[in-house]
Amino acid sequence: MSRNFRLILDCPDQVGIVTRAGEVITRNGGWISEAAHHSDEESNWFFSRFEIQGDSLPCGIDELRRQFESLKDELKLNLRLIDTTEKKQVVIMASKGSHCLSDLLDRWKSGDLDCDIPCVISNHEDMRGLVEWYGIPFHHVVIEKDNKAPGFAQVEQLVDEYKADCVVLARYMQILPQALCEKLRHKVINIHHSFLPSFIGAKPYHQASRRGVKLIGATCHYVTEQLDEGPIIDQDVVRVSHSDKVDDLVRLGKDVEKTVLARGLRAHLEDRILVHGNKTVIFS
Amino acid sequence: MSRNFRLILDCPDQVGIVTRAGEVITRNGGWISEAAHHSDEESNWFFSRFEIQGDSLPCGIDELRRQFESLKDELKLNLRLIDTTEKKQVVIMASKGSHCLSDLLDRWKSGDLDCDIPCVISNHEDMRGLVEWYGIPFHHVVIEKDNKAPGFAQVEQLVDEYKADCVVLARYMQILPQALCEKLRHKVINIHHSFLPSFIGAKPYHQASRRGVKLIGATCHYVTEQLDEGPIIDQDVVRVSHSDKVDDLVRLGKDVEKTVLARGLRAHLEDRILVHGNKTVIFS
Amino acid sequence: MSRNFRLILDCPDQVGIVTRAGEVITRNGGWISEAAHHSDEESNWFFSRFEIQGDSLPCGIDELRRQFESLKDELKLNLRLIDTTEKKQVVIMASKGSHCLSDLLDRWKSGDLDCDIPCVISNHEDMRGLVEWYGIPFHHVVIEKDNKAPGFAQVEQLVDEYKADCVVLARYMQILPQALCEKLRHKVINIHHSFLPSFIGAKPYHQASRRGVKLIGATCHYVTEQLDEGPIIDQDVVRVSHSDKVDDLVRLGKDVEKTVLARGLRAHLEDRILVHGNKTVIFS
Amino acid sequence: MSRNFRLILDCPDQVGIVTRAGEVITRNGGWISEAAHHSDEESNWFFSRFEIQGDSLPCGIDELRRQFESLKDELKLNLRLIDTTEKKQVVIMASKGSHCLSDLLDRWKSGDLDCDIPCVISNHEDMRGLVEWYGIPFHHVVIEKDNKAPGFAQVEQLVDEYKADCVVLARYMQILPQALCEKLRHKVINIHHSFLPSFIGAKPYHQASRRGVKLIGATCHYVTEQLDEGPIIDQDVVRVSHSDKVDDLVRLGKDVEKTVLARGLRAHLEDRILVHGNKTVIFS
Repeated sequence: MSRNFRLILDCPDQVGIVTRAGEVITRNGGWISEAAHHSDEESNWFFSRFEIQGDSLPCGIDELRRQFESLKDELKLNLRLIDTTEKKQVVIMASKGSHCLSDLLDRWKSGDLDCDIPCVISNHEDMRGLVEWYGIPFHHVVIEKDNKAPGFAQVEQLVDEYKADCVVLARYMQILPQALCEKLRHKVINIHHSFLPSFIGAKPYHQASRRGVKLIGATCHYVTEQLDEGPIIDQDVVRVSHSDKVDDLVRLGKDVEKTVLARGLRAHLEDRILVHGNKTVIFS
Repeated sequence: MSRNFRLILDCPDQVGIVTRAGEVITRNGGWISEAAHHSDEESNWFFSRFEIQGDSLPCGIDELRRQFESLKDELKLNLRLIDTTEKKQVVIMASKGSHCLSDLLDRWKSGDLDCDIPCVISNHEDMRGLVEWYGIPFHHVVIEKDNKAPGFAQVEQLVDEYKADCVVLARYMQILPQALCEKLRHKVINIHHSFLPSFIGAKPYHQASRRGVKLIGATCHYVTEQLDEGPIIDQDVVRVSHSDKVDDLVRLGKDVEKTVLARGLRAHLEDRILVHGNKTVIFS
Repeated sequence: MSRNFRLILDCPDQVGIVTRAGEVITRNGGWISEAAHHSDEESNWFFSRFEIQGDSLPCGIDELRRQFESLKDELKLNLRLIDTTEKKQVVIMASKGSHCLSDLLDRWKSGDLDCDIPCVISNHEDMRGLVEWYGIPFHHVVIEKDNKAPGFAQVEQLVDEYKADCVVLARYMQILPQALCEKLRHKVINIHHSFLPSFIGAKPYHQASRRGVKLIGATCHYVTEQLDEGPIIDQDVVRVSHSDKVDDLVRLGKDVEKTVLARGLRAHLEDRILVHGNKTVIFS
Repeated sequence: MSRNFRLILDCPDQVGIVTRAGEVITRNGGWISEAAHHSDEESNWFFSRFEIQGDSLPCGIDELRRQFESLKDELKLNLRLIDTTEKKQVVIMASKGSHCLSDLLDRWKSGDLDCDIPCVISNHEDMRGLVEWYGIPFHHVVIEKDNKAPGFAQVEQLVDEYKADCVVLARYMQILPQALCEKLRHKVINIHHSFLPSFIGAKPYHQASRRGVKLIGATCHYVTEQLDEGPIIDQDVVRVSHSDKVDDLVRLGKDVEKTVLARGLRAHLEDRILVHGNKTVIFS
């Protein structure tokens, strides 16, 4: 991958934001290869994403950041400047189910996910061999049913140690403690096995079977303190029929889960997602 | 369309149902062009649909029905025998929104819906001209906000007069009285403008926008006394993004609504739907 | 619809295009509600689309156009400035098949297509009544099998008279003469009833049936002198099975044809399409 | 998985096939849990698939086969009787690309593919470690560019030794010799990385990029002597845009390839596919 810089910003809407941000980039020689802007009329908020060719910016990202300081104050920008050569550290948490984990590992090894995976954390030993074949450290952290705090303390410590930029719950099946959710705000990506807000809570495929729906789905979202209520990143569905039992729904759902999770993670890694309230702006 | 007979049955599951039903058809020379059978293990119930070439059955459908009598009793069959030359009478009910109505009328005129449309009933005058251009009687039946009974009595009378086999609520926007729902059990097809069970109730597109979903959908279902809870016939979805406002969701949703409603109606007209409890078996 | 201005441009890629175009907009007070930019690395070409709130530009579109003159020369811009209150004139051409025409008319009447439809031209009388119900002039222009020139001369005259900005071939079934294609370059939108480049030419549904494909599709494209080879605007598919005969493919295909044609037309009307060589950039 | 028997047949169409086949099953006490029948009018051919609960047939499958002998001759049946406890032996052939292989292995280990995988054959060493982690023998068989016969002789020997019922080309990238195609007729499943018949031959994603299509796809088919021309089992597509370069098409296509290949293999394993000429009947 060639080096790119990304400028991600959102702020109260007003005249001239694109031009003034663009002006800082241009006066440094920055070559914009892709850009998108969105104005949300309801909240009067503005969102913007620029992708800039790194070799066109001899000044470097720190100098660019410095030059944005005054604009940041003036326009009240939430601003991120990203250097794509600094790979994001993605910690994956998994349980016994292997489909999402296995899928992510293959994508990563094939070069289709632009990140490092410094470790995998699981509350079961099952996937250790596979993870280690990929050359990734595997940590077995037991979450005791009646005493979850010690396990989650260890999880938090690992997340800190590995300097995780992002935590992916690849069908992890455990609910993160509220404090950890808050600490990792908009950094924890979950895949929920239903087309939210349908079938919130436990055993969504059983719920779907009882209701007799003709499509089932999966939802990738940021984790918040409200279970299954976080900002939605991506969703998809697959057709089912009367002849599909719960087991079939589970099996068919896996394909959607792993695809949607990988798409959501990719959008996160490419800094295409801006969260505003409980909704996401996603620049495709 | 050539004449076909259809045998639709469901009953408690046991050995020999296909063979014994087939035996009645075969001894009369019936040429089966298509058949499908489904056994629901959970409820131990059996479902079957045979399509038989009409010209292979010189005995006629009444004689065939007579010959099925003893089997019907013995196997406790719910049984329908249909002659495809007796077109179903489909009464369409519409409001001001034209997309579903206009779509159904064009399909019907193009010969893609094998039914008669003896009349259209609407609580608004708007669509009279279009309906009448298609040569179909148009009845304007006002449903008074504070006194709905007289209007619905008139609706019921029209449905009776026209001997409706099926009533299609093409975004009718009014809730049918409970008694009418019961009288027309599994004969009233509604299109709900959400991917049920998400966003039950009023203004689903507003609800969808607030939740920030990435797909919106529509659901075609039989109307029961429980609003939006009837057996689902078909569903579909369309992708939306952060840049779609409620108006855009409404517009994008229309495409799904009309397509799903037409598909559901077609399945009904081809006797492909068997209702069991609150779920449908649909032989494609 | 509120008044918006749209700035659509493409040019050889270089540093500063977004900023300099934005600068012209901003110094006039222009409020950008939406913008997207794309750089094609292979051809080193840049594409850009700005949507600007009309009431934020007291100078008016002519003055804005004047101010862009020098930038246009300097950056070698292909540039369009559009005032959304000047509705595009869309002439629809149809044949006997009604599904696309009927669908477009309903969308237009419902306010979902932001254009005028000054007339419909058809080589058959069948749809006159429906078109006239919508209050739109209907012209029956016969294309003689052995002498097509007079008919097409009349078509060209009508297109000129009505000052058509866009001509939609709604399953028109006739091939436009080469000279007309050239004259109306990137203004004629066709819907082809296959997933191009599969099944180019005649009777694509018959071809699809013979090949035994499991999905069929439709393709909306700009018409060029090379039949079925023009720049693709949109495509979609629908699932079919072994039990679908050619007639069923035709019927199922209609849903895709009308949906894809309407989506393509909408993208054209919103000035989201930039043609480059034989490909399209479509800002969603 | 519980034991089931499957009866798969096709034959010239005539009156009474379902009934007479059903009669044999019923007189032995066979409990039909699922059945589907299809009559192809064009070729006047009949296709049928019965799924029978094994424990309802005390006579066993050999006795059932014996009892079908006379019917087989009389009705000219192509007939297969399958015992689901005899797992099919599926040999996977792969190259360097891992996405299909990795996906199939995970599905298999998760119990979602009802087969044995006695070995994986590859012309590269890359995937040995992963395959062996799953406990499956890995054979590295080099296909020399200028002398392919010895390599394919070894492949054939392995296929024979492992008594392969099915060979899956999981992006194998080599063309099997004609004699092997014929020997393994309707037993070799390939995944082609285009929506056939579009972009037959080499580098379909490059072809797709040049043509500017808006959807790309993949096709699962049985391998025949005619490259990319065999009977199609399944296909699917994914949306792409102007901003997707060839590399992106390759990446996006992988998701479709692996999903479609797995679906096609599953249909094969469940004996849902009947080949007739160059087309497939697939009982879902």
